[in-house]
Amino acid sequence: MSGFLGKLSPTKRVPGNNDLPLFYVNQTSMEPQRSPRSTPRVSATLAELLMNVEDARNDQTTTRRALEMASPLTSSSSFNSWTSAPASSVSSSPFVLSFNDLTYSVKIRKKFEPLSYCGRASNDTAVNTKILLNGVSGEAHEGEMMAVLGASGSGKSTLIDALANRIAKDSLRGSITLNGEVLESSMQKVISAYVMQDDLLFPMLTVEETLMFSAEFRLPRSLSKKKKKARVQALIDQLGLRSAAKTVIGDEGHRGVSGGERRRVSIGIDIIHDPIILFLDEPTSGLDSTSAYMVIKVLQRIAQSGSIVIMSIHQPSYRIMGLLDRLIFLSRGNTVYSGSPVHLPQFFQEFQHPIPENENKTEFALDLIRELENSAEGTKALVEFHKQWRAKQAYDNGNRNVNVSLKEAITASISRGKLVSGATNNSSNLKPSFQTFANPFWIEMIVIGKRSILNSRRQPELLGMRLGAVMVTGIILATMFTKLDNSPKGVQERLGFFAFAMSTTFYTCAEAIPVFLQERYIFMRETAYNAYRRSSYVLSQSIISIPSLIFLAGSFAATTFWAVGLGGGASGFLFFFLTILASFWAGSSFVTFLSGVVSNVMLGFTVVVAILAYFLLFSGFFISRDRIPLYWIWFHYLSLVKYPYEGVLQNEFEDPTKCFVRGIQIFDNSPLGQVPNAVKLNLLKSMSGVLGINMTAETCVTTGIDILKQQGITDISKWNCLWITVAWGFFFRVLFYFTLLIGSKNKRR
Amino acid sequence: MSGFLGKLSPTKRVPGNNDLPLFYVNQTSMEPQRSPRSTPRVSATLAELLMNVEDARNDQTTTRRALEMASPLTSSSSFNSWTSAPASSVSSSPFVLSFNDLTYSVKIRKKFEPLSYCGRASNDTAVNTKILLNGVSGEAHEGEMMAVLGASGSGKSTLIDALANRIAKDSLRGSITLNGEVLESSMQKVISAYVMQDDLLFPMLTVEETLMFSAEFRLPRSLSKKKKKARVQALIDQLGLRSAAKTVIGDEGHRGVSGGERRRVSIGIDIIHDPIILFLDEPTSGLDSTSAYMVIKVLQRIAQSGSIVIMSIHQPSYRIMGLLDRLIFLSRGNTVYSGSPVHLPQFFQEFQHPIPENENKTEFALDLIRELENSAEGTKALVEFHKQWRAKQAYDNGNRNVNVSLKEAITASISRGKLVSGATNNSSNLKPSFQTFANPFWIEMIVIGKRSILNSRRQPELLGMRLGAVMVTGIILATMFTKLDNSPKGVQERLGFFAFAMSTTFYTCAEAIPVFLQERYIFMRETAYNAYRRSSYVLSQSIISIPSLIFLAGSFAATTFWAVGLGGGASGFLFFFLTILASFWAGSSFVTFLSGVVSNVMLGFTVVVAILAYFLLFSGFFISRDRIPLYWIWFHYLSLVKYPYEGVLQNEFEDPTKCFVRGIQIFDNSPLGQVPNAVKLNLLKSMSGVLGINMTAETCVTTGIDILKQQGITDISKWNCLWITVAWGFFFRVLFYFTLLIGSKNKRR
Repeated sequence: MSGFLGKLSPTKRVPGNNDLPLFYVNQTSMEPQRSPRSTPRVSATLAELLMNVEDARNDQTTTRRALEMASPLTSSSSFNSWTSAPASSVSSSPFVLSFNDLTYSVKIRKKFEPLSYCGRASNDTAVNTKILLNGVSGEAHEGEMMAVLGASGSGKSTLIDALANRIAKDSLRGSITLNGEVLESSMQKVISAYVMQDDLLFPMLTVEETLMFSAEFRLPRSLSKKKKKARVQALIDQLGLRSAAKTVIGDEGHRGVSGGERRRVSIGIDIIHDPIILFLDEPTSGLDSTSAYMVIKVLQRIAQSGSIVIMSIHQPSYRIMGLLDRLIFLSRGNTVYSGSPVHLPQFFQEFQHPIPENENKTEFALDLIRELENSAEGTKALVEFHKQWRAKQAYDNGNRNVNVSLKEAITASISRGKLVSGATNNSSNLKPSFQTFANPFWIEMIVIGKRSILNSRRQPELLGMRLGAVMVTGIILATMFTKLDNSPKGVQERLGFFAFAMSTTFYTCAEAIPVFLQERYIFMRETAYNAYRRSSYVLSQSIISIPSLIFLAGSFAATTFWAVGLGGGASGFLFFFLTILASFWAGSSFVTFLSGVVSNVMLGFTVVVAILAYFLLFSGFFISRDRIPLYWIWFHYLSLVKYPYEGVLQNEFEDPTKCFVRGIQIFDNSPLGQVPNAVKLNLLKSMSGVLGINMTAETCVTTGIDILKQQGITDISKWNCLWITVAWGFFFRVLFYFTLLIGSKNKRR
Repeated sequence: MSGFLGKLSPTKRVPGNNDLPLFYVNQTSMEPQRSPRSTPRVSATLAELLMNVEDARNDQTTTRRALEMASPLTSSSSFNSWTSAPASSVSSSPFVLSFNDLTYSVKIRKKFEPLSYCGRASNDTAVNTKILLNGVSGEAHEGEMMAVLGASGSGKSTLIDALANRIAKDSLRGSITLNGEVLESSMQKVISAYVMQDDLLFPMLTVEETLMFSAEFRLPRSLSKKKKKARVQALIDQLGLRSAAKTVIGDEGHRGVSGGERRRVSIGIDIIHDPIILFLDEPTSGLDSTSAYMVIKVLQRIAQSGSIVIMSIHQPSYRIMGLLDRLIFLSRGNTVYSGSPVHLPQFFQEFQHPIPENENKTEFALDLIRELENSAEGTKALVEFHKQWRAKQAYDNGNRNVNVSLKEAITASISRGKLVSGATNNSSNLKPSFQTFANPFWIEMIVIGKRSILNSRRQPELLGMRLGAVMVTGIILATMFTKLDNSPKGVQERLGFFAFAMSTTFYTCAEAIPVFLQERYIFMRETAYNAYRRSSYVLSQSIISIPSLIFLAGSFAATTFWAVGLGGGASGFLFFFLTILASFWAGSSFVTFLSGVVSNVMLGFTVVVAILAYFLLFSGFFISRDRIPLYWIWFHYLSLVKYPYEGVLQNEFEDPTKCFVRGIQIFDNSPLGQVPNAVKLNLLKSMSGVLGINMTAETCVTTGIDILKQQGITDISKWNCLWITVAWGFFFRVLFYFTLLIGSKNKRR
């Protein structure tokens, strides 16, 4: 199996383990011929090989790096050791990404999509097919930047997605090869990075912290903390973020770094492992000309450090154009120009549309394409002309062939200091890889938790607002239901208090939806490249939510318990507090789950409010269990509010010595309530005679147990109510985990 | 008082009235000297004068226009008569807008602003002052386009706001004059237009409809419908929107016109009256290069038709630069360059920073300014250099003096077909103007209503979703509370049903918040220039909401009334339906009011849900009126839910012949409920003896009236409950009107 790869193993092989295994990879497909994507061959040899390369490199570079790190002034040279290499070594083993005849079409679906992932095309019989890419070909070289240009809807982002392996294999036709070899998904994840258009960052972390967390997630555990820090510092310099390193990212409510700096941080997060291929979707969108230029300048630096940079770009300025090495102009999925910006004037000259003197070349080209698109004939002539022109160019230049195999190129690249990565995926793998994630489960949990706590602690107003909401309701309830008495009316009011209080705990959880949704996008970006396990995210996020829930539940319980005059003393308070805590836990799990399903804030909030209203309706407060129609009883048991409501009711009414209706009060809720007390006493006396028991004004007619029976609360004990509430919380966390599994697939179909 | 103005009255004066009084103006201040803005002198003579000019023009142009309109093919010549004029006549009476030494500074306020208009600076003792404009001067000429350039935060928008009279007079220092005369606010509204950056348009109207509604709002009523249509058609051609005229604007859910077309529609709305000065805030932001170019091209056409166009622009492309006549570069409120783009290279040459060959001039300038801003010395040297350079230029060229008075210029402009306006404002006016709004109150109402209905009818899914929400709850309630019996438990369940049903009507109104908020922004743009009265908007919007409320209330009442088994027969149903309708009305008024106060959708929704929950808590359902603590009783009467809830309860229980607890049922809610019926009968018999009345198993113990007494529902009759609910609706509409009055002030302080 190790076949031809074995022959290429490096000269030096150290059998023992080492302290810096920078590159773990399990297998890759190594098909030398340029064939359309086929099933990959499994081979673990490359991984071993690369590890050995790593060993070799360590031996020869540690001393050099140690020297560099010793002198704190030469930060640029330290950064050099991580990212850039002498020009001579770059040219010695260049990477070439080729793509040939890429074609991709989608069936047009219906428009209205309230839920986030109904992403699969429905199997309607008569659907239109739209061609997004139509036979697009090209080549990108190491050290160069390639830009994809075109109007919106021309297929720019689709081409980037196709190259970045973000389109399902069976949908995309054509071939994509790196140094002549088809890239496998797991390999692609290790050696490439994809930077999304949106900056999804924790607002309250500093630039340095943000990059450091990325390093902790994505660089292998075996790399020492000191070395991770060095990598982050080098990256900060490379990104030109030195002056902003200690500034928080910021959001609408908090002043932070500028838009251009934020974009560079986003790029930094994704290139922490120093990838060979970097894809970017509109890296300059929304930036002013200077910021945009600086972003592209940073990308150029990255390319020159031995990477291929491929980006889509909307409206490049004159100065940015000067930095780009290769352009592809798309029009409705067709290539209308590909090549160096230098040849653009010649191309349009030959197409009989010369670019006027002094005019911005790309602007002219984009406008001409636009005009052709709007004309009757369309861009057909231009597409055809480009094909001929390109064929001629290829003939003139000869085919610049790659004579370095992928493995050799990677080996050379690693020995120059590239690929600080430990992340690789074992999907579509037949035997277990040695490491899919950089860190073990428990470290991931600690890092995720640390980051989340750091971010929350810097915006205490979020907890403050939730506490405010809980306390306002608590104080209103406490003053409204002050010192309820033990009478038939008092009993009814207790029921109302418990129903309202339990619903409140659930409703206040709904306020956290925007925070969850914001985090979800960060999560989706990070798990797309296996920064951590989904399970450790769910678990860590669950655990760190608990302290604040304890705080909220404690405040609410303390505000209301004694003010309303609830029974049970200290143990009664403890159970009341625990039930409220369990409700907060179940409620926040439920809202977390919903925020995983519904992506729109407003829709999420509406749905939560409606569902909670139905939960309350079916809880047994409005209509007791024994009187709910049989066809609705299932929903009664689904109602999250039922369990804490019944729990606190039992806590309140379980004391058999407590009396809620005494002799004379039996007439309170009847027309006899108005007769004088003397008559009531006579009535009691005569009734005593009939029943054969002695009923006086003080005789207890209704105990708490009787009330529980009347309310139909007989099926579950109070502690079971508590445990069931807690279990609901866990259930929704598990559901949340599955929504993340399904929802965070980020490939197009 | 008419002093020197009288001498300038036109040669021809027709005393009779005419059918095309295109220009109403009451007075203006006419100060020939360039002094800082002082209190305006009142003079009605200009208005008369202009009317006379109008008369004169009518006589000489109606025949020409009639001819043009007769030939449908010559749309361009018809458009000509409205907007463009021969070059010779433009040069004969040019407008010149001069601004001198404009300085504006603000005190920096605190950041967190959840509500939308806490816009006034608080009187903190130690606040920082930030200078937004620092002695900016310049001149803009008729037929030309002036662009204000600079990085974000440089003061571009502030300068546009200052020129467009959108900054309170006492905050802005310096002078702004048109042909040497200080422009008064009412005059400015008539002859100028301000186009905001955002496209705030009704998504389901076509381009033609959108412009036609603008014409109906802003062109004088006396202008015939036919002529308004002609103006709209001419404008469509001028804006290059002919092919998109019949397409709807569109939004996320509906395919509509392109971004560039949308922007041009926004411009069209504001220039429907063919203003002399047009201000635009970033007209090209968010557009691709071709669309941006076409927008600027349209603006050039407008300028050439005899207007001054002044805009801020972020990153003009090379081709757009070629269309601009004058530039002002700002850096942190200071002018760093002002003049023609042609002189830009010479300027920077002399500043010792020559623009490299082939480089985009503006890009270079903006980047240089940025670099200077970030340097230690800042842009001070450049600002100083510009001052000297400008002084020299002025000396070289001589001062291009304006020798045409404002009145003459306006007269000439109107006679060439400009200013199709009837809108002017009477703020700061001592005597009433003849017309503040183009249309009378009732026409405004009809037009607003027509537009709103047209827009809603094209998106029936909005009503469908609300109907769905109401019906789902209706059906759940109907199946949950099916055929309630007349027993103590049944009574309790009835109370629960009514409380839940009444709350639901209020909650479903909350779903309309996003729609209200969207409309609010359109409203604010339109009333900023007196397109219509705020009162007619509020009234029209109220009236047109009623049919859909009737529909929703009918569906809900019909679903639940008979299924639950409510009493009162046909008249009972009618009252139930009317109460639900009143609740919908009050609820939607409440939500409308809140959407006028809270500008954020999410915050608005949270606030509405919380307030409605408290309304329910205090409605009397959870705790009856006689047991609510005294210090909360005021909130009980504020609770919107109280009135419909008490109304329907009385409707249900007012029948004195209906019995809810019969003899034997008296023991239902006590421990005696479990004893055999025979014992119960014996008990009844013995009680009868004591009371001296005969109680059998069938004797009615509790009637509906008794239940109402127990619930404390004795203070207001059922019809009064209904009227009070309706009155709440009106109350919130009036409040809404006042929030609009306060909130839609669009001047900076």
